[in-house]
Amino acid sequence: MEATKLTQNQILEETALKHFTFANPPKELTLESGEKLGPITLAYETYGTLNKQKSNAILVLHALSGDAHAAGNDGWWSNLIGEGKGLDTNKYFVISSNVLGGCKGSTGPSSTNPKTGKPFGTDFPIISIGDIVNAQKRLIDHLGIQELLAVIGGSMGGMQVLQWMISYPDNICSAIPIATAMKHTPQQIAFNEVGRQAILADPDWKGGHYYDSAVPAKGLAVARMIGHVTYMSDTSMAEKFGRRTRANNSNSKFGADFEVEGYLRYRGDNFVKRFDANSYLYITKAIDNFNILNGNKNLASIFKNLAAKVLVIAFKSDWLYPVYQSQEIVKACKLASVDASYCEINSTYGHDAFLLETEQEAYLIGNFLNTVSNGHHGGTH
Amino acid sequence: MEATKLTQNQILEETALKHFTFANPPKELTLESGEKLGPITLAYETYGTLNKQKSNAILVLHALSGDAHAAGNDGWWSNLIGEGKGLDTNKYFVISSNVLGGCKGSTGPSSTNPKTGKPFGTDFPIISIGDIVNAQKRLIDHLGIQELLAVIGGSMGGMQVLQWMISYPDNICSAIPIATAMKHTPQQIAFNEVGRQAILADPDWKGGHYYDSAVPAKGLAVARMIGHVTYMSDTSMAEKFGRRTRANNSNSKFGADFEVEGYLRYRGDNFVKRFDANSYLYITKAIDNFNILNGNKNLASIFKNLAAKVLVIAFKSDWLYPVYQSQEIVKACKLASVDASYCEINSTYGHDAFLLETEQEAYLIGNFLNTVSNGHHGGTH
Repeated sequence: MEATKLTQNQILEETALKHFTFANPPKELTLESGEKLGPITLAYETYGTLNKQKSNAILVLHALSGDAHAAGNDGWWSNLIGEGKGLDTNKYFVISSNVLGGCKGSTGPSSTNPKTGKPFGTDFPIISIGDIVNAQKRLIDHLGIQELLAVIGGSMGGMQVLQWMISYPDNICSAIPIATAMKHTPQQIAFNEVGRQAILADPDWKGGHYYDSAVPAKGLAVARMIGHVTYMSDTSMAEKFGRRTRANNSNSKFGADFEVEGYLRYRGDNFVKRFDANSYLYITKAIDNFNILNGNKNLASIFKNLAAKVLVIAFKSDWLYPVYQSQEIVKACKLASVDASYCEINSTYGHDAFLLETEQEAYLIGNFLNTVSNGHHGGTH
Repeated sequence: MEATKLTQNQILEETALKHFTFANPPKELTLESGEKLGPITLAYETYGTLNKQKSNAILVLHALSGDAHAAGNDGWWSNLIGEGKGLDTNKYFVISSNVLGGCKGSTGPSSTNPKTGKPFGTDFPIISIGDIVNAQKRLIDHLGIQELLAVIGGSMGGMQVLQWMISYPDNICSAIPIATAMKHTPQQIAFNEVGRQAILADPDWKGGHYYDSAVPAKGLAVARMIGHVTYMSDTSMAEKFGRRTRANNSNSKFGADFEVEGYLRYRGDNFVKRFDANSYLYITKAIDNFNILNGNKNLASIFKNLAAKVLVIAFKSDWLYPVYQSQEIVKACKLASVDASYCEINSTYGHDAFLLETEQEAYLIGNFLNTVSNGHHGGTH
C-alpha cells in the first residue's frame, strides 16, 4: 500500500509542473537594463485550491539553486507546505515559480535564442531580481490574482520578497523575508565571485557556449562546494562530520580523507547533474547586483508605500546572511511605519536553517498568516 | 639618497637567503608516515647576531603561503622584526625558515627527485607539521643552538609552535602561538579542500606532473581567492571595498564589476607567479591532518613535559581561526600547569590580523620576551 501511495505522489509531482508563457502583449519583458527578452516562459507549481474571492494565494520564492518544486516528495520546502503544515494547503493556494534565468523550465541561458535557434549561452542578457519579480507579476496576473495574501522566501527568495514589497506594494497583503539582505556585502559578493571564477576557469565553459559538448562540470562542482561551506555553520559541520575520516578510494594523495571532504565532493558532483553553470553565473550576478537602497539614500523612504504586514525571520548561526542584515530590514520597515515583526531563531544550522528549521518556521508563519487573513486588508479581497 | 638606501637593502635581501642541506647522518629525514625523504634542504634567513652563549635565538615560523623572507623590504613580518621592533634584532638572533614541502628554496614537490632526475610532483611523499618541525630542529642543531629563547608564528606557523612545544619541550624557553588551533575543524578543512579541488579541477594540473608545461594557474588562483575571503572579516571587507564598482575592462558579462572582485582576481593571479600549486596541496593537507590531540585523549597530558612560558594571542574578528580555538590551547596549558598567558586583540582584520596588527603584537611580544630572558630558564643558557 505504501508503495502505491508513493507512486501516486510521484505521478502527482511529475504532472504538477506547469508552464506559463507570456501570451498577452507585451510578449517580451523589458528588463531593468533596457534590453527586451522574449519569449518568456516561467515554470511553476501550485498546491491547494484558489478560493472564489482569489484571496488565499501565497507566492513562494526560491533561493539560488531552488526550483518550482517546493512541496511534495523531495520538494525543497515540503515540510512547510502541505495539508496542516505551516503553509496549509487546506487553507491556502500556494504558488511556487522557477526564476527567470533559471534552468528548471523557465527561460534562461540554456533556452533557445529565437534569433539563432541555438541556446542563448552568454548571449542571454544580464537579469536582475527586479526582472525576476516583474516576470512573476505576469504569472500572478495570468492566474487572475489581484492581491497575494503573502509573498515568502529565504535567501535569494527573501530578496524577491523585498522586491515585491517595493515594486508591487499594492498587490501583497503580507511579506515574509527570511535569512536575507537588502544588499550583498563585499564578503557575500566575494563568495559568489569565487564560485563564478571556478566556472570561468573550467575550459569546458567555453565562454558560455558549451551546450553542444561537455558541460563545465568541475568548475560548477567547485562553485557548489564553496556554497555549501557557507550555508553551514562551524557548529553544524562539527556536529555532522567532526574530524571523522573515511576510506579514500581514489588511490590519490589528495583524495577525500575526511568525511567532510567526501560530502562536499558528493554535493558538488550531484549539483552538476541538476543545474546549469550559466544559470549559476546569471543568478549569482543578479543576487550580487541587488541593492534595494539603489537611488534611495534615505532608509526611511524605501518602504514608504507599503501597507502590507511584514514578518522578518533570521537565524543566529547564519554567518553568510548575518542577523544584522535582517535587523536592517526591520529598521527600514519601522522607519516607514510598516507593521513589521522580527524573529531570530536560535538554530545552529547556519544559513541552511531557512530550509531545515521548518518546525519553528511553520509555527511563526502559521500564526502570522492567521493575523493577516483575519485582520489586515481584511474583507477587501 | 633614498633610492641608494633602497638598493642597498635590496642587495642585503637578495643575499640574505641561505640554504642548509642535511650534511651529517642521517642525511634523510624519516617522515611520520615512515617514508624516508632526502636529500633535504631548508631555505632560511637570519636577522641580528647570535650571542656568545647562543641564548638569544628566536625561531619565526611562517603560514601557508609564507617563506623565509620575514624581515626587511617586503618581508611578511617586517613591521615586527628589526632594530627596536617587537622582535628586536639588536637583542635577538631571529631565524626564519621556509617549510619542508614549500617552494621557496626548501625541499618540496617542485624539487628534483633523485630517483628520476625530474621534479617530484605528486611522487613527493605526504608530509606533516611534525615533519616540518623535525627538519627545523636539524637546522637549529646545525646553527649550534641548544635552546631557543622563543618559537613564534601565526596560523600554520602557530601549529608549528604547538608542535615544538610537544616534540622539543626541552629546547625552547618560550612559545608564542598566534591565531592558530590544535586541530582543524571540518569548516577549516572544508575551505582548504575546496581550494585543493579547484587545483585538481584544472586540466593543467595533470596529476601533479606539470613542471615541463603550463602550470595550473587558474585552479591555484581560485584556491587563493577562497583563502583571501577567509583571511579577511565581514567588517574589514566592508571598510576596504564596500559595494564600490570599477570599470569592467574585460568586455564580459562576468568581468569584475565590484572592487572586491577585481581585488580577488588580482591577488589570485599574482599568487600564481610566486607559489607552486603542488606545494599548496601538500601544505594544506599537512595543516588539515594536524591534530595535536592525536593519541592523547587527555587534554591535560598534552603539554605535561613543558617548562617553557607560553603566550597565546588571538583576534576577535578572526572567524577562520576563532578565538575559542586559542582559548583551548590556553586551557590545555593550564591543565598541565604551564605558565601560559592569553591575549585577545580587538582587531577587525579577521585572520589577517596576525600579519597586520604588528603594533599591538610588538608590545605584547616584546614585554613577554623580557620576562623570558630575565626570568624563566634564566642564567642556564
